[in-house]
Amino acid sequence: MSTVARIDPYRLLNFATAVYVAAGMSQENAHLCADTLVQADLWGHQSHGVMRLSWYAARLKAGVCDPKAKPELVIDAGGLALIDGHDGMGQVLTASATQEAVRRARTHGIAAVGIRNSNHFGTALYFTLMAARQGCVAFLSTNASPAMAPWGGRKKIVGTNPWSWACPAGAHPPMVLDIANTGVARGKIYLAKQKGQSIPEGWAISAAGAPTTDPSEAIDGIILPMAQHKGYAIALMMDMLSGILTGSGFGAEVAGPYQAERRSRAGQLMIALNIEAMQPLSDFNARMEALIAQIKAVPLAQGFSEVFYPGEIEARNDAKNRREGLLLPEDTLTDLIKLAGDYNLKELLPF
Amino acid sequence: MSTVARIDPYRLLNFATAVYVAAGMSQENAHLCADTLVQADLWGHQSHGVMRLSWYAARLKAGVCDPKAKPELVIDAGGLALIDGHDGMGQVLTASATQEAVRRARTHGIAAVGIRNSNHFGTALYFTLMAARQGCVAFLSTNASPAMAPWGGRKKIVGTNPWSWACPAGAHPPMVLDIANTGVARGKIYLAKQKGQSIPEGWAISAAGAPTTDPSEAIDGIILPMAQHKGYAIALMMDMLSGILTGSGFGAEVAGPYQAERRSRAGQLMIALNIEAMQPLSDFNARMEALIAQIKAVPLAQGFSEVFYPGEIEARNDAKNRREGLLLPEDTLTDLIKLAGDYNLKELLPF
Repeated sequence: MSTVARIDPYRLLNFATAVYVAAGMSQENAHLCADTLVQADLWGHQSHGVMRLSWYAARLKAGVCDPKAKPELVIDAGGLALIDGHDGMGQVLTASATQEAVRRARTHGIAAVGIRNSNHFGTALYFTLMAARQGCVAFLSTNASPAMAPWGGRKKIVGTNPWSWACPAGAHPPMVLDIANTGVARGKIYLAKQKGQSIPEGWAISAAGAPTTDPSEAIDGIILPMAQHKGYAIALMMDMLSGILTGSGFGAEVAGPYQAERRSRAGQLMIALNIEAMQPLSDFNARMEALIAQIKAVPLAQGFSEVFYPGEIEARNDAKNRREGLLLPEDTLTDLIKLAGDYNLKELLPF
Repeated sequence: MSTVARIDPYRLLNFATAVYVAAGMSQENAHLCADTLVQADLWGHQSHGVMRLSWYAARLKAGVCDPKAKPELVIDAGGLALIDGHDGMGQVLTASATQEAVRRARTHGIAAVGIRNSNHFGTALYFTLMAARQGCVAFLSTNASPAMAPWGGRKKIVGTNPWSWACPAGAHPPMVLDIANTGVARGKIYLAKQKGQSIPEGWAISAAGAPTTDPSEAIDGIILPMAQHKGYAIALMMDMLSGILTGSGFGAEVAGPYQAERRSRAGQLMIALNIEAMQPLSDFNARMEALIAQIKAVPLAQGFSEVFYPGEIEARNDAKNRREGLLLPEDTLTDLIKLAGDYNLKELLPF
């Protein structure tokens, strides 16, 4: 057991699934939620990987997230639907909303499905990719617990409020965008803290309003939006789509996955557009390949060895990590060992 | 006639309308296109105001933009539609797509209308506001002529590709976001050049790849994306939505309003979501007011005298400029005088 031992992602998935089952979830839902975590690690997004398993488990144990909640369709209006999540796992609810949106888009050309009374859903791209692989252009937004101040203020009431667009890209893995509106995803600051690393200037200010490179000060302080006021404005719009429009919590009402004592009240909005309703999917794919060829053909700037399209690095990491196994930080391994003890699952530990 | 004389926006609108009529447009379409320009000036976005009138006129005169083109509905599939713009004015086509999307959203809950073979449409928020005022949440994207390199490259093939979200906000003017994915809208660099001002570092690099504060060097060079690679990724996704999905031009195929010799081939995508299908509009408005109250109540950061919500500054500028009249840069006045001469409309000049 060491940080340099590579971990079999399939055994890691089995372990995480068993933890979620032990926490009260059905086998199917546990597998889905576990897969979202392991998949994030495979993409190279450790900040959203199995390091979060113990946080989710704590929320399930505390009863603020219900392992057995069933998504309830409360509005069913053609191209538009609304699901009440009854405080279930955000991953389960968002997967359900995604399939609902894809199905409705086949009838109406485009569909939107909102989720209220949800929870943190992990990585947005997991779900937009799910729709892209079914021939859709997909959009997904969520709100999140307060992480930023409104531009010009010094009190956190605006979440990172991530959003994603994805689409098929012909012979290439799908093109996918997944953005938190902070200069950096908050999980990356937690990861830096867990690894004992400092963070770059410009990511956050301290509670006193001073620039900081200390991840602990940043966690206690205020994260800065990406692109200054633009990131603030986008984050508010994502709150409008995810929280206000769905009838869920918004602004300072939303609680995060880092705290085990409060209902989340997060909301989400998934939009799927059926490409075939606009043009043959094969034409769309050929045009995406032509765009990617344009991108790949540009001469390189100094210091770069390759130009990537959005989502390409994740797809490449995924292939490599599935082949070679995952490397996880020591603190994450320690957390998983503790979880295995708590749930009496030591024989399933994949390392 | 001087830069300090304030100009009556209604007389300016009449003048710009007359120019467009003289360039071959119908009275109704000319009025719409003129209004988009004057409205941009009223919002304080001079980079997209009447300084562009001569550019549009030049494209109409050159025949690359057709003043009499009629939008043709080529796909009519429930919540989804596609308009072929036949190289008409982007403003006329996008207004048509907006009304089409709002109408379809009332039936299907949500609707998307794409436009192919369009032109530059001015400011995106003009159209998303049009939908917001009809009780919709609206999204609009466009692609644009190459302005940025793919992240890591040094050849311009990615446009600024602006996008907008807007929604009603109860007793307040609508909340609206309008973003170019460059660190700065290219029009602001043209404006700085016209005003003889330098630009901040971080907006652009020269053609040789060096940082620059000279707007002319920036125009000949490469504008940097907002939020580094994130702005690049968003811009590509907006091209996918606007160009690839609609069957219009994409990547390096799109020509800008600055050049009079090429068809634009720009495309757009408008999405409208009928709020009443999700919750009573009065509830949505009350929740928006509560969010804005949360924003306004935060303590101020150093150097700020007020916290704004997105779109608030524009609404305030609009009220002030309608009351007091518009101040336009000397170079813009010179351009308008020249246009008045070209079209024999000197008696309509508002200054």
